[in-house]
Amino acid sequence: MDGVRLEQRHGKARVRVGRVWREPNGRHHFVEWSVSISLLSDCLPAYTHGDNSDIVATDTMKNTVYVKAKECMQPLSPEDFAIVLGKHFTSFYQQVTAAIINIVEKPWERIKINGQPHEHGFKLGSEKHTTEVVVKKSGAVQVISGIEGLAVLKTTQSGFEGFIRDKYTILPETRERMLATEVTASWRYPFETLASIPAEQLYFMEKYMDVKKVLIDTFFGPTEGGVYSPSVQSTLYHMAKAVLARVSDVSSIQLKMPNIHFLPVNLSSKDNPIIVKFADDVYLPTDEPHGSIEATLSRVRSKM
Amino acid sequence: MDGVRLEQRHGKARVRVGRVWREPNGRHHFVEWSVSISLLSDCLPAYTHGDNSDIVATDTMKNTVYVKAKECMQPLSPEDFAIVLGKHFTSFYQQVTAAIINIVEKPWERIKINGQPHEHGFKLGSEKHTTEVVVKKSGAVQVISGIEGLAVLKTTQSGFEGFIRDKYTILPETRERMLATEVTASWRYPFETLASIPAEQLYFMEKYMDVKKVLIDTFFGPTEGGVYSPSVQSTLYHMAKAVLARVSDVSSIQLKMPNIHFLPVNLSSKDNPIIVKFADDVYLPTDEPHGSIEATLSRVRSKM
Amino acid sequence: MDGVRLEQRHGKARVRVGRVWREPNGRHHFVEWSVSISLLSDCLPAYTHGDNSDIVATDTMKNTVYVKAKECMQPLSPEDFAIVLGKHFTSFYQQVTAAIINIVEKPWERIKINGQPHEHGFKLGSEKHTTEVVVKKSGAVQVISGIEGLAVLKTTQSGFEGFIRDKYTILPETRERMLATEVTASWRYPFETLASIPAEQLYFMEKYMDVKKVLIDTFFGPTEGGVYSPSVQSTLYHMAKAVLARVSDVSSIQLKMPNIHFLPVNLSSKDNPIIVKFADDVYLPTDEPHGSIEATLSRVRSKM
Amino acid sequence: MDGVRLEQRHGKARVRVGRVWREPNGRHHFVEWSVSISLLSDCLPAYTHGDNSDIVATDTMKNTVYVKAKECMQPLSPEDFAIVLGKHFTSFYQQVTAAIINIVEKPWERIKINGQPHEHGFKLGSEKHTTEVVVKKSGAVQVISGIEGLAVLKTTQSGFEGFIRDKYTILPETRERMLATEVTASWRYPFETLASIPAEQLYFMEKYMDVKKVLIDTFFGPTEGGVYSPSVQSTLYHMAKAVLARVSDVSSIQLKMPNIHFLPVNLSSKDNPIIVKFADDVYLPTDEPHGSIEATLSRVRSKM
Repeated sequence: MDGVRLEQRHGKARVRVGRVWREPNGRHHFVEWSVSISLLSDCLPAYTHGDNSDIVATDTMKNTVYVKAKECMQPLSPEDFAIVLGKHFTSFYQQVTAAIINIVEKPWERIKINGQPHEHGFKLGSEKHTTEVVVKKSGAVQVISGIEGLAVLKTTQSGFEGFIRDKYTILPETRERMLATEVTASWRYPFETLASIPAEQLYFMEKYMDVKKVLIDTFFGPTEGGVYSPSVQSTLYHMAKAVLARVSDVSSIQLKMPNIHFLPVNLSSKDNPIIVKFADDVYLPTDEPHGSIEATLSRVRSKM
Repeated sequence: MDGVRLEQRHGKARVRVGRVWREPNGRHHFVEWSVSISLLSDCLPAYTHGDNSDIVATDTMKNTVYVKAKECMQPLSPEDFAIVLGKHFTSFYQQVTAAIINIVEKPWERIKINGQPHEHGFKLGSEKHTTEVVVKKSGAVQVISGIEGLAVLKTTQSGFEGFIRDKYTILPETRERMLATEVTASWRYPFETLASIPAEQLYFMEKYMDVKKVLIDTFFGPTEGGVYSPSVQSTLYHMAKAVLARVSDVSSIQLKMPNIHFLPVNLSSKDNPIIVKFADDVYLPTDEPHGSIEATLSRVRSKM
Repeated sequence: MDGVRLEQRHGKARVRVGRVWREPNGRHHFVEWSVSISLLSDCLPAYTHGDNSDIVATDTMKNTVYVKAKECMQPLSPEDFAIVLGKHFTSFYQQVTAAIINIVEKPWERIKINGQPHEHGFKLGSEKHTTEVVVKKSGAVQVISGIEGLAVLKTTQSGFEGFIRDKYTILPETRERMLATEVTASWRYPFETLASIPAEQLYFMEKYMDVKKVLIDTFFGPTEGGVYSPSVQSTLYHMAKAVLARVSDVSSIQLKMPNIHFLPVNLSSKDNPIIVKFADDVYLPTDEPHGSIEATLSRVRSKM
Repeated sequence: MDGVRLEQRHGKARVRVGRVWREPNGRHHFVEWSVSISLLSDCLPAYTHGDNSDIVATDTMKNTVYVKAKECMQPLSPEDFAIVLGKHFTSFYQQVTAAIINIVEKPWERIKINGQPHEHGFKLGSEKHTTEVVVKKSGAVQVISGIEGLAVLKTTQSGFEGFIRDKYTILPETRERMLATEVTASWRYPFETLASIPAEQLYFMEKYMDVKKVLIDTFFGPTEGGVYSPSVQSTLYHMAKAVLARVSDVSSIQLKMPNIHFLPVNLSSKDNPIIVKFADDVYLPTDEPHGSIEATLSRVRSKM
């Protein structure tokens, strides 16, 4: 084009789908996904000349989600469903060079009644399983899994000392504070082609559970005594390092861990010098502002 | 006043407080509350003449929350904390005739590591415990407890038949559909005076757990086979009835159960008569519109 | 029923509808509404015996919204559309004794290009027009109009002095602070029967504009100098009083005006006694906690 | 490090600040910003060894926002404030190699009373002015401005035809539909060093107004007749092209324009073949799913 360059993508976001699988014995499986599709494709005339002949309608993408969900005859992970969709769009349409599929799984958990799992009853839990899959026409692939909204808090074994003090610094040093965060994690697998994706049905579900367990175990430490956190940075690093150490097939992991502050309450005024004295017992929880700490830890050998 | 009548209240909303209690053995207890206070008081000149001499500053109300939280030396229920606040405001200030206290407790749950409870680690769960307490200067009291955000779903054992059909009716009758809702419950206790409130430390916590269990058990039915729901109305009624039957001290219960629709997907067009045929397997979950079903079931003898 | 009493309602919430009217000259009118319907009806067997024969399906209610929107051949106010719906449900269905209709209108405003109004272009504004209409089978009616989300702020001419000082009080007195609030208003009309509703097409639209103007004018005062506010309470009262004085046909008005605090920043530490000194120039805006001030002012003669 | 690589940043998000400037004549200027700061710095030991000696506390970053806001003696754009902060962090701290500053300005607009601007009164509008500025220790800079939440809609002059039809396609072709979107725009300036930033006080404010006007004018077309949109893609492209053509100093612009569907209502059932027939008059507005169309248009000569 004359003097300008266009980069574009189009797709359908927030396609919601629920899928039930019924075993003959009466046991049901259920997932609810919010699917977003983004296609990279050769369709420049749609932009420049109003010629839609190379455009996959986003409504068609939405329909495809339902058809493909129907075709999945066994429970599957959001990663596997994203791969199904990515393969479809890049192979079915000549002009589509790559598909980016994002899925958020709603955390429906099988309910237990008096400790027994229910055949067809589910209750909403908290943190969410997410995925982003990129499939290229060549068969090249990139698979990222993630967790959203994992809110954790410990009431002790956290401090923050020895940081830079300058004329803008007020924060006192402490070895005793609350530590609260809402972890967003995303990790990448080493698979580079569709052919190399593991065929085990629940491979990605198991990895998801493994990573989540390592993150939680490392954040909290032993049930008695816990583990001291000298900073969110340090805790984040050790969580990421533990994932790489304990979960094979993870080639890198990104963690975003906002420092959600619980401010020790300390009321005072001219007349009433100390109304409530801070004694690590009463806190003011705040949503904003919050510290924002994020990092990615990668295996050096990986081709990230 | 000349020709007009004024009804007013003022208070402080969304006062957030976290409270930690530490047992000598290293075990910590933790709650996080969002407290809203509303005072009914004689302070008309503030409105009509800019005379604030009878006004309790909302900032003062906020401070009071922290002082009172500090003074609570044992873990306590949000109901009990609301009662503490209500007693304070109606007794400490001459012109305050009634205090309405609302509390929402954030669902922090003690984390388990390899099945063992952690001394000081907590993770955010899903549904929330709420309360509304009204305390009057006379000592009259009203205590309401509640649950917010209890999202439940079953993949079968739900239908809807035999309803009115007229020229605006399209919905087919069915004996097989998804049933999903997000229960908001609030129930009232029979206590009418501060003196009659039970003194047991965790009385209201136990009642909360009892009501929640009855609601869930009744919604889902047996783990094998479940229980058939002919309508949200019917399910709601039986949940409410079961609470009154099984939980003493509940004098009435209100349930709001939006019917969150999972529409069976059925794609078709002129060219493609059936692309995906509905077979109780693929659904479109929707947030809006939703059915809104709500009802209050009361014991007749109660003075509600 | 044996020992219990049931109060119930059911309906459809968040039914979204857009309606376009096209004038022959090319000028379009457009509204977008979110409609919620709640029916009081005799349908107890649905709750107690799973017998739906007296149930208006909420899906049918939704369809009715679209049919009735279609039948409205001229632009109309949300109040008038709510009345149309309320009349329909209470007259068409024998067992429906009352209908409660809530509508929120999305604030689409005709766009201007170089100062000229566009024929068919609209842009989203800020505060919303709301209504709640109750229609009974008898023809009795109650019409409430409202405003949601009217966020206003003034940078001076606000103070707060002379309030109660006690051992929980820290807030200093001041004659100079920011005043910010998000007004929620709802006002009631004196019409008690369907027959008494004014027939003028845009009657309720004009009243809405009138009330909004009076609220804004009174909050801010003259463009030069403004008007001093000794408290949110006082400002609220004078706004309500001005509405009753200047807008006939309003029989009462409720205002909810949270005090959205802009805290003067005042940084200090042991080492740095004053980092930023407050001089009415730098503020920390906060969403929580906030003061909650609400009041209803009614004409005494009205039968409210 | 042994076998792993760490990329990290930390900062403070959602630092809210309000700033008032008072002219001697009584006229006030006011802005409210939500500031997020992210620092790239050499502080690896904090992650790996719990050594915070190179860490700028996020609390210190927050304080700095207030001090710097105070030091700004004249009204300024969010871009200019972001540059002030970026310069500070990269020059004041030896180990900070780059600062990324994001600001969202709350759309407070001076209120008019009877057409006259008020001295000190403001009302919240709709779409927001945003910026992202990156400053490096070297003095290299990147300035991006943006608009968030510009919701626009036209009731005609939109169609979608000639797209790919396959076995997943249901959407009918049309030359008459609603077109609604919420534009998110961000555009980049060509300035590459701090020294090259224009010194005019309101330079970025004017550019912001210019870009917004071009986007709106191009989306809607002439007030009489408008302009036909053959697709969101085409409209997006012409909006971007017009910005590059008419606003100098914009070197590239990214537009995200979700296609927010208004579905023509078409009720039918077996018994009632057509209840409401679509005639471009009654629509069902939906938030999800939505089309997602985004593109970046760049001047080729620019060094983007």
